[in-house]
Amino acid sequence: MPVERIETPALVVDLDALDQNLRTMAAAAAEAGVALRPHAKAHKCPQIARFQLGHGATGVCCQKVGEAEVFVDAGIVDVLITNEIVDPAKVDRLAQLARRARIATCVDDRAQVALLAEAARHHGVQLDVLVEIDVGHGRCGVPPGASAVGLAQLIEETSSLRFAGLQAYQGAAQHLRLEDERRRAIDLAADRVRLTTSLLAESGLACPLVSGGGTGTFMFEAASSEFTEIQPGSYVFMDAAYARNEWAEERQPFAHALLVHATVISTSVRGRAVLDAGYKALAVDSGYPTVVGLESAAVAGMSDEHTLIGQDADRPLRVGDRVRLVPGHIDPTVNLHDWYVGVRDGTVEVVWPIAARGPGL
Amino acid sequence: MPVERIETPALVVDLDALDQNLRTMAAAAAEAGVALRPHAKAHKCPQIARFQLGHGATGVCCQKVGEAEVFVDAGIVDVLITNEIVDPAKVDRLAQLARRARIATCVDDRAQVALLAEAARHHGVQLDVLVEIDVGHGRCGVPPGASAVGLAQLIEETSSLRFAGLQAYQGAAQHLRLEDERRRAIDLAADRVRLTTSLLAESGLACPLVSGGGTGTFMFEAASSEFTEIQPGSYVFMDAAYARNEWAEERQPFAHALLVHATVISTSVRGRAVLDAGYKALAVDSGYPTVVGLESAAVAGMSDEHTLIGQDADRPLRVGDRVRLVPGHIDPTVNLHDWYVGVRDGTVEVVWPIAARGPGL
Repeated sequence: MPVERIETPALVVDLDALDQNLRTMAAAAAEAGVALRPHAKAHKCPQIARFQLGHGATGVCCQKVGEAEVFVDAGIVDVLITNEIVDPAKVDRLAQLARRARIATCVDDRAQVALLAEAARHHGVQLDVLVEIDVGHGRCGVPPGASAVGLAQLIEETSSLRFAGLQAYQGAAQHLRLEDERRRAIDLAADRVRLTTSLLAESGLACPLVSGGGTGTFMFEAASSEFTEIQPGSYVFMDAAYARNEWAEERQPFAHALLVHATVISTSVRGRAVLDAGYKALAVDSGYPTVVGLESAAVAGMSDEHTLIGQDADRPLRVGDRVRLVPGHIDPTVNLHDWYVGVRDGTVEVVWPIAARGPGL
Repeated sequence: MPVERIETPALVVDLDALDQNLRTMAAAAAEAGVALRPHAKAHKCPQIARFQLGHGATGVCCQKVGEAEVFVDAGIVDVLITNEIVDPAKVDRLAQLARRARIATCVDDRAQVALLAEAARHHGVQLDVLVEIDVGHGRCGVPPGASAVGLAQLIEETSSLRFAGLQAYQGAAQHLRLEDERRRAIDLAADRVRLTTSLLAESGLACPLVSGGGTGTFMFEAASSEFTEIQPGSYVFMDAAYARNEWAEERQPFAHALLVHATVISTSVRGRAVLDAGYKALAVDSGYPTVVGLESAAVAGMSDEHTLIGQDADRPLRVGDRVRLVPGHIDPTVNLHDWYVGVRDGTVEVVWPIAARGPGL
């Protein structure tokens, strides 16, 4: 089927660009000598996770128990949940999952440790637990240093848990515009990791894993001597928000591999074209999508089911024309859709379900 | 099951508040003597549409063919698609739907009329077609007046189509802050309708239906003598964006009947509590959600799976505490979820699938 016959709005993967992104990241991790554990919350698709494992990833990251269940069911047997799980029902499911896969998760509070310990005992498993430290994001994580060591000791003293290392993700650094700003933020994050690992060593606690990094900064975590693993997600597809980052050599290292295809449904209002994709097909938390190949056709507004773009006076769009949009933010845009349409050379090659889509659980 | 045992994040309906909102709107439409055709894109749920019909609604509005299919499949046999459908595959499905239900849709371009005519002929049905006029929204719709009459004549001359009236939705008026601003915008919209219906009458074209109005303005369309039908959607649940509108008697007419329940997963960063609901559970196109019952706990930031709120120094939240959020914008928030959990008196009473959820089609 030719691309032009895909019903819109549709989430369309450029399979060649995806492959290129997978190779670029795998090569960067291998060259730096760090493990690559891509964040699956970006794509929510076991098929893409299998490609990542095929390119040398050691496992995947998930953000929720429900996501982890989908990936384990699909045969991905090494999952790190980069988040704190506190609902007793969810903690119970997490422990059950550890019967079938290597499961690690994060804590930043003694209450979480107690919940994990009880569920792991109940199900006769041992859970790997990372202490999350706040390296500048200001979201989850204990302060670097003594607090982290205290939690690590508590974990290590708990027979059903194993202290596996540190989660040290600097989310606030990912979209700092200048490469130098991002480098400085990760230098600071690495200092905070070093402070913590030094204290852990003084306390006789081994810290086999330090995980962190995203698509905007992974090269700095990888180059530091503090991180053993990087966990970028968005690199598989890229998005408009990451494209606004400035990069060395004035180019971004990844290609736009995911577009929303839309159709012009109206051109009645002067100077405007209205597309059949709105908030229910494109997340706008990180800004409007950008329009591919139409220089003057910036997004002028959006609503639930519509995107308004400016018309080019010389080449006006007509009802029925196709328009391709780069999503503002990949993760929540993917989460709106039920499947990917994978295309190569203008032809539909595959359809992959977005199996881990959903708001929670 | 008590409300406290619902796994979070969850989309929770207060059934008593929903019932009150349904009654309030039904009474307002009846009193004004206009038909009520609620917009089902707000709730995407056949069970709620059936309640609306039970309260006197004449049918529902949908925004997409895929939505209309879900509602017709569920036995809702009178659907107006308040949008332009241009993809030939979708137009074909629309015509097929007209074999099983009364289907009306909108046009603002001769190309759309041609597509509808051909599909209706092919399937041996007659489609009701409204001409959409732009009464100030600046999205879809021909200018009021002669352009609309020209399109209406074209429809009327097409044997497989029937000119059913005007779609005249003033979307830009719905969230004007002051009631007076909204009234003036709808006065202007009504003038534009009047201009058009006068010209239609002069041309000998009957205009049985004029449909428009939303939750922010329906009372003004209903009070005008130009509109025969109102099509509000958000009133079933309300949201934070509509709550910012000012209303007569300093009160909003509808109750918050839909909340996202979330759980505190971390309090490690000073002055903050982190909830387990982010962009994948709450749409932010119309602003952040608001927090119920915690005066000082404003939303400080959000990310894919997290919402950060400020801590109250006197009553700090702890890990595991429940927090209820009013979504910023109902429609795209509902679209993130797969089901509603309906509660009454603190107990779960029903679970309704959000059957028409999805980005398109």
